[in-house]
Amino acid sequence: MSLESYMNRIGQQARAASRLLAKASTKQKNMALFAMADALENARPRLIEENVKDMENGRAKGLDSALLDRLLLNDARIDGMIEGLKQVASLPDPIGEISNMVYLPSGIQRGQMRVPLGVVGIIYESRPNVTIDAASLCLKSGNATILRGGSEAFHSNQVIAEAISVGLKSVNLPEEAVQVLNTTDREAVGKLITMPEYVDVIVPRGGRGLIQRISEDARVPVIKHLDGNCHVYIDDEADLVKAFNIALNAKTRRYGVCNAMESLLVHKAIARDVLPKLISAFLDKGVELVGCEATQAMSASIGPASEEDWYTEYHAPKLSIKIVSDMDEAIAHINKYGSHHTDAIVSQNYSKTRAFMTEVDSSSVMVNASTSFADGFEYGFGAEIGISTDKIHARGPVGLLGLTSQKYIVLGDGHTRDN
Amino acid sequence: MSLESYMNRIGQQARAASRLLAKASTKQKNMALFAMADALENARPRLIEENVKDMENGRAKGLDSALLDRLLLNDARIDGMIEGLKQVASLPDPIGEISNMVYLPSGIQRGQMRVPLGVVGIIYESRPNVTIDAASLCLKSGNATILRGGSEAFHSNQVIAEAISVGLKSVNLPEEAVQVLNTTDREAVGKLITMPEYVDVIVPRGGRGLIQRISEDARVPVIKHLDGNCHVYIDDEADLVKAFNIALNAKTRRYGVCNAMESLLVHKAIARDVLPKLISAFLDKGVELVGCEATQAMSASIGPASEEDWYTEYHAPKLSIKIVSDMDEAIAHINKYGSHHTDAIVSQNYSKTRAFMTEVDSSSVMVNASTSFADGFEYGFGAEIGISTDKIHARGPVGLLGLTSQKYIVLGDGHTRDN
Repeated sequence: MSLESYMNRIGQQARAASRLLAKASTKQKNMALFAMADALENARPRLIEENVKDMENGRAKGLDSALLDRLLLNDARIDGMIEGLKQVASLPDPIGEISNMVYLPSGIQRGQMRVPLGVVGIIYESRPNVTIDAASLCLKSGNATILRGGSEAFHSNQVIAEAISVGLKSVNLPEEAVQVLNTTDREAVGKLITMPEYVDVIVPRGGRGLIQRISEDARVPVIKHLDGNCHVYIDDEADLVKAFNIALNAKTRRYGVCNAMESLLVHKAIARDVLPKLISAFLDKGVELVGCEATQAMSASIGPASEEDWYTEYHAPKLSIKIVSDMDEAIAHINKYGSHHTDAIVSQNYSKTRAFMTEVDSSSVMVNASTSFADGFEYGFGAEIGISTDKIHARGPVGLLGLTSQKYIVLGDGHTRDN
Repeated sequence: MSLESYMNRIGQQARAASRLLAKASTKQKNMALFAMADALENARPRLIEENVKDMENGRAKGLDSALLDRLLLNDARIDGMIEGLKQVASLPDPIGEISNMVYLPSGIQRGQMRVPLGVVGIIYESRPNVTIDAASLCLKSGNATILRGGSEAFHSNQVIAEAISVGLKSVNLPEEAVQVLNTTDREAVGKLITMPEYVDVIVPRGGRGLIQRISEDARVPVIKHLDGNCHVYIDDEADLVKAFNIALNAKTRRYGVCNAMESLLVHKAIARDVLPKLISAFLDKGVELVGCEATQAMSASIGPASEEDWYTEYHAPKLSIKIVSDMDEAIAHINKYGSHHTDAIVSQNYSKTRAFMTEVDSSSVMVNASTSFADGFEYGFGAEIGISTDKIHARGPVGLLGLTSQKYIVLGDGHTRDN
């Protein structure tokens, strides 16, 4: 079969399965998740065997140690996947909720019913646990899924796919509800993102390069997460202790995460009070610092920040620091150089915090809290399919709700429209 | 100036204006709308003069009478535009609403604040009143707008643009909050839909061809309205009077609208009771009928429906009729051939209506009501920027809310994240 017909068949099957999933009961979906957990437990020895193949191929291909680590499955990680399935089963089912049912002058009632998106395509890199993660969240939200994992995880993903399939069949849900592509052909991605007749939305999970490429070529809506160039602004009316703790936490809790602070903005009137202590704390932790001229004047250890630095998500122990004249300058800087992901103000001034919340154009705006909180679990969603930097549809951390849509429903009793 | 730099300047100005609009007060936005209404009143004689030019050019270019009618501005239509501005001023402002503020285990509160999308690009055909319509809805929802009207309405649109600008300036809002492109170069559209750095969403208003072209080429999210191939399904447990009235209304209220019924599905057990009367009513109104074999057997005036017919939005006094074995066949037909716009069931059976609402994958699903109700005004939005057939973001009739987004806000008091 050609790739074209293979992908068309996958798409048709997903669309057909999505119709059945849309009317599946919560109980049936939860039972499928538990059955998948059992099937994964049963497949554990084979999964580890197949993962060894992926790891060997990965080493032979010269993957770096970070990639190999993401690829690795061991008992603890398989435990985590099984736990994840059970946890998704425990989440409330978003589907079927009816809201805003209002009575209108014509005599009809209209409201909105929460429904699945339909078919979700997920494209991700070499972490096999994403297969379970994505499949379980899509299933719970009533969506059929087409999964395309990184070719490095091919053998592991096929075993996981089988376990998913066993779980679905055991509760009489169509096994095509979750399809893991069994090809590593790159063209498959190209086809997946250009089949609007079969795929309703694409969620790419991976590096910026992957996401950018997919967004550019897709003919299907993409829920995407690009940069997390997050800022903390320390106002001249900040509490110094809170400012110190928040800035330190936002940068140094973890360096490779999208909600880490990459740029620190400090009001000039408070810079001498807060920056020296922060600078030495950052240097103690091994954080490389670059800054504006005024910041550089405060320590010989601070290099110059280029225009490029202000735009950069380092994803590393590096930070740019800028001293600003007032909050307006901070907001303008954030809206210009930031990535509209997560930005925080530290201030005790009520009016300023209110204005900052309104004017900063980011998916999460924090007041006196670390940017680290921008996370689906911290927001109480119980799960996260990703963080969206889009403004359309889902913005910020995306839980189950982000995988749903709302359709209008109208109740009449023979009503017709006159004019 | 090259088109490229002209469009970049327009984009930069829109982005800058959007920052100011996002923090404009409701009062300021409403005052701008009233000032625009006054300015339009003052410009009335000149607007009519310039519209005469457009009409003359249109006739010289050989536009058909329908297009010329849409292009025409007279006193009544200008009254309508002025009334529209005042009406948008009277709508509640969606911006700034904070909802779902929950207290989380970490001690933070997180919720969502409703915010403008930012910059909205609107591309439309030769109806100059859309200029006012689109500008007023975008302004009220705090968005900057870039408007590209059909070249046929160029002179009229420039006068309207001036009136808008006068209104904005009079309340100290940036006149770049609404920019009407002063070029008819087709390349301008190509540029407008590929500037994600300046434009957050595109709303095309016009024929299917325009919308399809824009969706394919856009690198910016598009809120689009494609076909309205709407169905009414008459169940075997339908009330015959309601069924007759609803089917007749859905088809014949107006033929050229997207919420008109294009296909009628009838349960075989009730076909002999309801179809003969409906068929003669349709024929009386001059509606051309095509149908499946069983339908054709009911009247010599019914032609055969081809596979293509089931997919077709006629936008005309023409209807396809199919007799189905049960509701499941009707739902499968709708989900396969329909355009996911608006579909209705007529039935007195509670369980069937509930299942139909869940299983029909359309932006509006009606129970015992005419498809004609699928409309922003009938839904109580007070205004409508269009009807979306997308599943992402806004689905169905789009009012002011569809031009907004929600960002997360987090309130802490020095909170940092431990793990």
